Amino acid sequence: MIRTIFMSLFLAVACIAITAQAGSQLLKDSLEHFAPLPDQPVYKAGNPGSREKLELGKMLFFDTRLSKSNVFSCNSCHNLAGGGVDNNPFSTGHKWQVGGRNAPTVFNASLHIAQFWDGRAEDVEAQAQGPILAGVEMAATKELALKRIGSIPEYQQRFATAFPGQENPFTYENIANAIGAFERTLLTPSRFDMFLKGNESALTDDEKAGLGLFIEKGCADCHDGIAVGGGGYREFGVSNKPEGLTDRGRIEVTNDEGDMHVFKVPSLRNIELTYPYFHDGSVFSLNEAISIMGWTQLGEKLTDSQIGSISTFLRSLTGERPDVTLPALPPSTKETPIPDRF
Amino acid sequence: MIRTIFMSLFLAVACIAITAQAGSQLLKDSLEHFAPLPDQPVYKAGNPGSREKLELGKMLFFDTRLSKSNVFSCNSCHNLAGGGVDNNPFSTGHKWQVGGRNAPTVFNASLHIAQFWDGRAEDVEAQAQGPILAGVEMAATKELALKRIGSIPEYQQRFATAFPGQENPFTYENIANAIGAFERTLLTPSRFDMFLKGNESALTDDEKAGLGLFIEKGCADCHDGIAVGGGGYREFGVSNKPEGLTDRGRIEVTNDEGDMHVFKVPSLRNIELTYPYFHDGSVFSLNEAISIMGWTQLGEKLTDSQIGSISTFLRSLTGERPDVTLPALPPSTKETPIPDRF
Repeated sequence: MIRTIFMSLFLAVACIAITAQAGSQLLKDSLEHFAPLPDQPVYKAGNPGSREKLELGKMLFFDTRLSKSNVFSCNSCHNLAGGGVDNNPFSTGHKWQVGGRNAPTVFNASLHIAQFWDGRAEDVEAQAQGPILAGVEMAATKELALKRIGSIPEYQQRFATAFPGQENPFTYENIANAIGAFERTLLTPSRFDMFLKGNESALTDDEKAGLGLFIEKGCADCHDGIAVGGGGYREFGVSNKPEGLTDRGRIEVTNDEGDMHVFKVPSLRNIELTYPYFHDGSVFSLNEAISIMGWTQLGEKLTDSQIGSISTFLRSLTGERPDVTLPALPPSTKETPIPDRF
Repeated sequence: MIRTIFMSLFLAVACIAITAQAGSQLLKDSLEHFAPLPDQPVYKAGNPGSREKLELGKMLFFDTRLSKSNVFSCNSCHNLAGGGVDNNPFSTGHKWQVGGRNAPTVFNASLHIAQFWDGRAEDVEAQAQGPILAGVEMAATKELALKRIGSIPEYQQRFATAFPGQENPFTYENIANAIGAFERTLLTPSRFDMFLKGNESALTDDEKAGLGLFIEKGCADCHDGIAVGGGGYREFGVSNKPEGLTDRGRIEVTNDEGDMHVFKVPSLRNIELTYPYFHDGSVFSLNEAISIMGWTQLGEKLTDSQIGSISTFLRSLTGERPDVTLPALPPSTKETPIPDRF
């Protein structure tokens, strides 16, 4: 009996070794560029994802009281029923204003090198502090957010249990810390991850052909890593400048001339769901976006057949969206500041 | 052993019988006015709630593509993470316009005599056709809604399975039929229902005192039935006209002079969550709303103690919100009309 178990274990290990050795050249090439999603969320040091904190973060993610008007929540622009985006070129915010850049997806965002198109926030916890205060987005102030949420006894209790041992667990930073921890759970494993883990039949032959082309053409030199992008910054228009590019990009953050028109390389996971594309959301068609990238970044006019093939691969990056059950938000109290649309 | 089991069974049955007979006067009085929520959704004849239809209805309920701008879904104003409302006096819609009446809760709405404050839609299926087309709400047209949803293959398939046997399952009416069927599942059983079913300890003594007062004062003469309201129409200001009442109410629907300032009696289920109150959302405080009702409808200046007692009872109507897992919406295609904010 024990011998049988050992024999089974030995065979299992041997099989894994053989599989790894026997991986196709495409798999080997892929593993030089990409890595599968982690099986579990990776939390920020000092901000672990306890059950209590994740529930609190989810509640805040869906709570419109963080916006001055009570019209918008995080989910308004980062819609978890969609691709973690709102599929608008620019998001609509307070008083029907629009933002200046396309809202990036929240799915897998925690795996990026930094947040926002210009990388001005170091992680999702830091990012979450921004839109609540942005005048064209949620248009609140720290004071208003704290007063709204702090006026609700259930929230006060939840902050205490979500941030145990802190002298003052209810802070604006912890609102964002809870939201950020929740966002780290928003991972979307796909067939591409199964492929990277050695199950080569997880991708179709057409998808594999597209993957090969994606690597061969050099797309994977920028769109790489766990998130197939999100790992660094590149100039938009390395080879040819796109028409009408007015956004100065990361230079606004670094004041470094070399960062003119530089943006974070967007993740291509769920790219099928995250249209319209680019920092300005100017292109709804994935094929058109691939064509533009070929010309501006690689200096190459890709053929329709090549574009179609890369597109076929990219659609295999559409992952399984996590089950998100809506929270049951507690009611306001007579101390809660009422909505202000103006 | 067997004798013991039989003895236990006998005692259990006897207890139930005694409880039923021995129900307090308050329970008897309550059952003359109210009824517990049904255990299962009640579907409209001809629009049964199959699993496929309910999933489709949930998808459409959360799909912002039904709005011209892609900013709003049904859930924007009837937020299932809240009280099935947006907690704004008037809802914000297309181009930051506002509606003219407070958005009523979608929870338990299917049990009302009719929909909207003026009862102009006969049921939730008919109601769901309205906001999509309303210029100050989602501002779409039937054509746009059909073009958006119809351009998405997964939706086409889902309409076919949700409405089997229909020659043309994909119609504007069926968009609303699917949404309406889903809305019928949005029931929120509360401790009050346990009480009505004979478990008298489900309410505290204070809540029972409030319930008694609610009946005694005559509140329950209008706020009655399964939904504790929603079953009929009443003039706002039977005893004393509220100040500044400009909304003509149901007369706009019936052209009957007797319907001047007449509105559907709102359901008080989840009233703790559905502030602000009245057709114009002018009052955020439940106690103030009770006070106004006492004066305008009953001609009585309720004392603070009476108001507090009724309020205590009303909070027991806060039910368990159904678990709603966000749908995974399929992406648009190149045939899908893009968002239009203007």
